[in-house]
Amino acid sequence: MTTNVANGVNEPEKIENDAEDIVDPWTVVSSSDKGVDYDKLIKRFGSSQIDQELKDRFEKVTGKPVHHLLRRGIFFSHRDMHSILNQYEAGKPFYLYTGRGPSSNSMHLGHLIPFILCKWLQDVFDVPIVIQLTDDEKCLWRDIKLEEANKMAYENAKDIIAVGFDLNKTFIFSDLDYVGQCPEFYRNMIRIQKCVTFNQVKGIFGFGDSDVIGKISFPAVQAAPALSTSFPDIFAGKKIPCLIPCAIDQDPYFRMMRDVAPRIGFQKPALLHSTFFPALQGAKTKMSASDPNTTIFLTDTPKQLKNKINKHAFSGGQTTVEEHRERGGNCDVDISYQYLTFFLEDDDQLEKIKKDYTSGALLTGELKKILIDTVTPILQTHQERRAKITDEVLKEYMTPRKLGYNY
Amino acid sequence: MTTNVANGVNEPEKIENDAEDIVDPWTVVSSSDKGVDYDKLIKRFGSSQIDQELKDRFEKVTGKPVHHLLRRGIFFSHRDMHSILNQYEAGKPFYLYTGRGPSSNSMHLGHLIPFILCKWLQDVFDVPIVIQLTDDEKCLWRDIKLEEANKMAYENAKDIIAVGFDLNKTFIFSDLDYVGQCPEFYRNMIRIQKCVTFNQVKGIFGFGDSDVIGKISFPAVQAAPALSTSFPDIFAGKKIPCLIPCAIDQDPYFRMMRDVAPRIGFQKPALLHSTFFPALQGAKTKMSASDPNTTIFLTDTPKQLKNKINKHAFSGGQTTVEEHRERGGNCDVDISYQYLTFFLEDDDQLEKIKKDYTSGALLTGELKKILIDTVTPILQTHQERRAKITDEVLKEYMTPRKLGYNY
Repeated sequence: MTTNVANGVNEPEKIENDAEDIVDPWTVVSSSDKGVDYDKLIKRFGSSQIDQELKDRFEKVTGKPVHHLLRRGIFFSHRDMHSILNQYEAGKPFYLYTGRGPSSNSMHLGHLIPFILCKWLQDVFDVPIVIQLTDDEKCLWRDIKLEEANKMAYENAKDIIAVGFDLNKTFIFSDLDYVGQCPEFYRNMIRIQKCVTFNQVKGIFGFGDSDVIGKISFPAVQAAPALSTSFPDIFAGKKIPCLIPCAIDQDPYFRMMRDVAPRIGFQKPALLHSTFFPALQGAKTKMSASDPNTTIFLTDTPKQLKNKINKHAFSGGQTTVEEHRERGGNCDVDISYQYLTFFLEDDDQLEKIKKDYTSGALLTGELKKILIDTVTPILQTHQERRAKITDEVLKEYMTPRKLGYNY
Repeated sequence: MTTNVANGVNEPEKIENDAEDIVDPWTVVSSSDKGVDYDKLIKRFGSSQIDQELKDRFEKVTGKPVHHLLRRGIFFSHRDMHSILNQYEAGKPFYLYTGRGPSSNSMHLGHLIPFILCKWLQDVFDVPIVIQLTDDEKCLWRDIKLEEANKMAYENAKDIIAVGFDLNKTFIFSDLDYVGQCPEFYRNMIRIQKCVTFNQVKGIFGFGDSDVIGKISFPAVQAAPALSTSFPDIFAGKKIPCLIPCAIDQDPYFRMMRDVAPRIGFQKPALLHSTFFPALQGAKTKMSASDPNTTIFLTDTPKQLKNKINKHAFSGGQTTVEEHRERGGNCDVDISYQYLTFFLEDDDQLEKIKKDYTSGALLTGELKKILIDTVTPILQTHQERRAKITDEVLKEYMTPRKLGYNY
């Protein structure tokens, strides 16, 4: 077995679209101001587009309008979502799994995106969610002590809870704590580690001979929560299908898991993939917590937010007011407009902003003000909610336990 | 870092003495009827001989005669044993760690050897011991299901307890259960996995690109018990030095760990290495549970034992009685004599047997009878003790808990 587990590609999948875009779990870089070419990424990764038919079916099955993150193509790609909808239509259970690598004490605006969709999916489908904090990964990849990464995991968990997840349907866990609390999780790690060779992780993740052995076996840790038996308290040992909403750079882990799952008697996990949340400076890179200037943290004050957007948000407008009025702005590269597609829920208002900015009727400063006015209350509400999450509440969410479902 | 962690050797350490002996954790083969050349192995591994000076110091420090397994050079090599004796002389604590890979429901005679010495060390030094059952390893290396390997671990634990370990000083654990019961163990695994590259495990263990990732990271699991903080119930988070008695084929794991330990703030583990327990057919290979004809199981009846020795034990004698009386036998290759060095405690009697067999006064049949008469009561006593080990007793030994020491 020397071929790639997922799609038969033999070379390392440092995905390069036109030798320009790089997309893997550690790097997202595009040469285009418009960002990564997602159509090409779908072809290269072998996933399916979230097309109108799927969105219509979503609405038919749930009886609710589809979330704007799906409506607008921010979640744009999937694997086996129809199977999950079949499952739901047949009255059978599934569960959600998503995660976060805790690399800083404060999460940023982009980190919210998968959690916002997950919260909506939890409400609409009434399903449990497991949320993995890969503090072990952060230690292995970065110069961070275990204690420090573990502390950040708990800080990040507060931000995640503040998105509004139902305590009765949500289990959040740190790898450094949970693996050592759950023999079934470790057993699933071993089952997965037995099915994947060094050649395969080399092909999928680009690992090399000088990588530490912790990195090489880590993909099994991120894959294990896609098996319901990794959570005996929740699923009582039953095999329940899993749906994983995540940014598309995390897909390699789950392509690997989709290859392994049937070999160890499980259904392949389904996926919903999001685009990346662009950096303030432009869509060539995604927002990153390690560069404060490109990043709006969930802890930023209204003043910091305003300053960052006004100073750093890449503009699609023209250099002078006169020129802008005449030629109009370019929404495809304008970061303020891009952010509004993530956070402004009203479609009509968004459409009008696009029209006015493109025509030149709306100036860059005005567009930035709309973004500031949209995001400020989101940040403030988040901060208020987060402030109420005591250590006791945090502990409840992070305690392995039965949730509000009888499996 | 492409060099071997332990001793700067760059090529894979499939140790070949004179290109003839192969010694690694999975293979022990010699081309000589006398078995592996241990003097050459000491040079190649870079360990130290257990010389008379060390044995004298053992006796001086403990006030007791040294165990015959040490006296007769069955434990023949060590690393840092003087540091452990210094520690003991200074009234400071240390602990023992040994282990077993549970590959069959019944252990064989050779498996007893490290445990017999450990039990003696436990008594003489009054120290705790942790005993690892690597059921995860057996799943990764062989076509064995987790549940099956785990069951064998518990069966083997009964054989180990029957050697006579003090409940108050002994913790036995299965990896498949304990890793998922102890966050600190998993954290130490990650700490170790962060210090060792694929190149290094390739150099030390000969792993290749087509090996599964579980094998590649497994050395960290076998190394973790050498850190006292992996057992918070016993050592309360304190850093206590570790002494590992084991067969010398397991040394690669601990050479690796001796390189890692100082980098993560621990003392290097000390080691006592034993020779291999030869197969019935001769010292070219060690006794292996996977070949019933070469093996005396701890479950064998007196009749089975007698038949196996009479039929299969390689003889150093001559083909006819006349020739034997005239030319004498060769104790260096005679398996019955070799086994007596492991199990017959009386030095004078052993010396006389050697003299008589070498001179031809003692015939092969007579020598075999002495061996049968020596091993039969050992097996019977073992079986009687093992029969008394109920599941409740087993559970006590295998429950993470405080032992009879205040750290």
